[in-house]
Amino acid sequence: MKPNYQQLALELHKKLKGKITSQSKLEVKTEADLSLVYTPGVSAVSQLLAEKPELAPDYTIKHNTVAVISDGSAVLGLGNIGPLGALPVMEGKAMLFSQLAGLNSFPIVLDTQDTDEIVKTIINIAPAFSAINLEDIQAPKCFEIEKRLQEALSIAVVHDDQHATAIVVLAGLINALEVVGKAANTSKVVILGAGAAGVGVASLLVEYGFEDIVVVDSKGIISSSRNDLNKEKQIIAGLTNKHDQQGELKDALENSDIFIGLSSGGKLPPELIKTMNSKSIVFALANPEPEILPDLALEAGAMIVASGRSDFPNQINNVLVFPGLFKGLIDNKIVEVSSKVKIEAAVALAGVVERPTADNIIPSVFDPAVVGAIAKSII
Amino acid sequence: MKPNYQQLALELHKKLKGKITSQSKLEVKTEADLSLVYTPGVSAVSQLLAEKPELAPDYTIKHNTVAVISDGSAVLGLGNIGPLGALPVMEGKAMLFSQLAGLNSFPIVLDTQDTDEIVKTIINIAPAFSAINLEDIQAPKCFEIEKRLQEALSIAVVHDDQHATAIVVLAGLINALEVVGKAANTSKVVILGAGAAGVGVASLLVEYGFEDIVVVDSKGIISSSRNDLNKEKQIIAGLTNKHDQQGELKDALENSDIFIGLSSGGKLPPELIKTMNSKSIVFALANPEPEILPDLALEAGAMIVASGRSDFPNQINNVLVFPGLFKGLIDNKIVEVSSKVKIEAAVALAGVVERPTADNIIPSVFDPAVVGAIAKSII
Repeated sequence: MKPNYQQLALELHKKLKGKITSQSKLEVKTEADLSLVYTPGVSAVSQLLAEKPELAPDYTIKHNTVAVISDGSAVLGLGNIGPLGALPVMEGKAMLFSQLAGLNSFPIVLDTQDTDEIVKTIINIAPAFSAINLEDIQAPKCFEIEKRLQEALSIAVVHDDQHATAIVVLAGLINALEVVGKAANTSKVVILGAGAAGVGVASLLVEYGFEDIVVVDSKGIISSSRNDLNKEKQIIAGLTNKHDQQGELKDALENSDIFIGLSSGGKLPPELIKTMNSKSIVFALANPEPEILPDLALEAGAMIVASGRSDFPNQINNVLVFPGLFKGLIDNKIVEVSSKVKIEAAVALAGVVERPTADNIIPSVFDPAVVGAIAKSII
Repeated sequence: MKPNYQQLALELHKKLKGKITSQSKLEVKTEADLSLVYTPGVSAVSQLLAEKPELAPDYTIKHNTVAVISDGSAVLGLGNIGPLGALPVMEGKAMLFSQLAGLNSFPIVLDTQDTDEIVKTIINIAPAFSAINLEDIQAPKCFEIEKRLQEALSIAVVHDDQHATAIVVLAGLINALEVVGKAANTSKVVILGAGAAGVGVASLLVEYGFEDIVVVDSKGIISSSRNDLNKEKQIIAGLTNKHDQQGELKDALENSDIFIGLSSGGKLPPELIKTMNSKSIVFALANPEPEILPDLALEAGAMIVASGRSDFPNQINNVLVFPGLFKGLIDNKIVEVSSKVKIEAAVALAGVVERPTADNIIPSVFDPAVVGAIAKSII
């Protein structure tokens, strides 16, 4: 029996009362110490940075600090649960940035869900940060917010749900295809979910070389003939569904090779797996409840199954990506997460697994090679 | 010879590249750990807080987190040096909150100096914080910003330059008066500077029982007959200068007992100290350069001299107050820093020095009794 993670998590969070804490990097023990880190000495540093703000990364936390920012509008698979609902997730990310990549990180949860106000607020608090990790912000506004911030700021701004998820999914697929002996350009991919993650994954798979992708949202298959599509889904319609297929998930899945679930509360019934091609790959990545439980997917005939959960094999979780991605961006002063950056990060991540097998297509989050491999790929 | 703090501070800051760092409170070592602090377990905490956000302090960093926020418009005595100029000071405060009071603290420097935008931005980022320390914001807008935030938020919002400075100055005066054998209600006080600190100190001294106070700004003595006063200076004019004195600093100082320098770059010429009453008290608190160096003030006849610097005796620095003040506010869920709260904190701080002498009117920042005494006084 799996342990009751929900109850244990509640107890642990109540005991910790905050998963991260700020720590002084120097113990201030004497008046002389205080004179250096605070007045009067600190005024020399302030004066220098007033004249040359571009030197801030050499003298302050701007060296390596990531803001993890959410408005709580699309948290895990829980939906719009507001800033304090989002806070435990953002704290979790901050602690993983700190422990896995040695970055300084702080969670900011916003008391507004208005696009203009979110953009303005983040611009206003940006000076001390070296990078901004947008997290769990609803589509389609997440796309506009990310784009406007990238235009306004000279630091990396990355909506993790979109880009880190795309990288880890591609890494998993590279190894899964190797195991089943299929190729990217001849495999049919069905993506369930066209939120931030679905759009991010579909776009990156196209860039990588997948040629037959169908994306399904809550209304059915996304095709150019639908007239209810927002701007991003219109772009997806243009990039995917080359046979102009219409219908529902079950129509899309017939004779497909790969299912990627990135939905909010969507389900993959086991009988649909039976309609997929042989040696099928099922990534059921909805959080906290996957579209189908891994055991059931295997039983239904899938050859390789992955989920977003850390309590099953093949955890396709953006934890594998964001620490190394941000470390690489910050270390190399890279501001733009281009398709090339993402593909190289995915290839590097896939390469950490030396001999992929059905149960081992992606490294463990605790594999010490992961962060370095990704960070090094970003140049 | 005093060491060259400026050069040493530059070197130390360059070595540290940030004086604080975020630290995970739990080492995440296994998939099971990850399942608790991140997905899937964390979703139970998110769901709980979505339904009952008032429980956030029991489960998250909202338990004890102070935001140290500045727009860089009035940093130390350096003036308007912008957000990155302010950052080293805010980091210093965050590290002292952490080390001295065990609070979690994070510096935020703002890329706007507009009152409305500052207020809106801070409201938007407030959810994760238990208290907000406004710092080094120009007068008079600091008064409006603090007031509007106090009205909008249900956590403590404290402009430290105003309130913590007032508390530490009053604590020092309580002991200094004991040493020289004078009383508050019969001593004449001259305050140089009518920014945030000057206004805060003048108001608190009146509340405490000082009856003869004259405040001097860059244009001269503040009196109701001047027609160039902003709202706060008008209030000060009403509270002080009972003899309706006019003129400059030198006119105010004649036959006074106490000088309190809270200016930005103001000077106290030694010859003016000679015109004060005997057993005079000189607090030259401008930072980083006091209105007069302590040695010169003693030479000129002052009986008790204090400065804001940690490299001279009697350091009147708000470091003595803010860690305990915020700890007390957060521990006791107190939102309003009333005059009563401030006077009790000052009395508690003065009481830490058992036998005050001319060289020892205020405890050391490193006296382990300081934080607890102040925190305990706030009930």
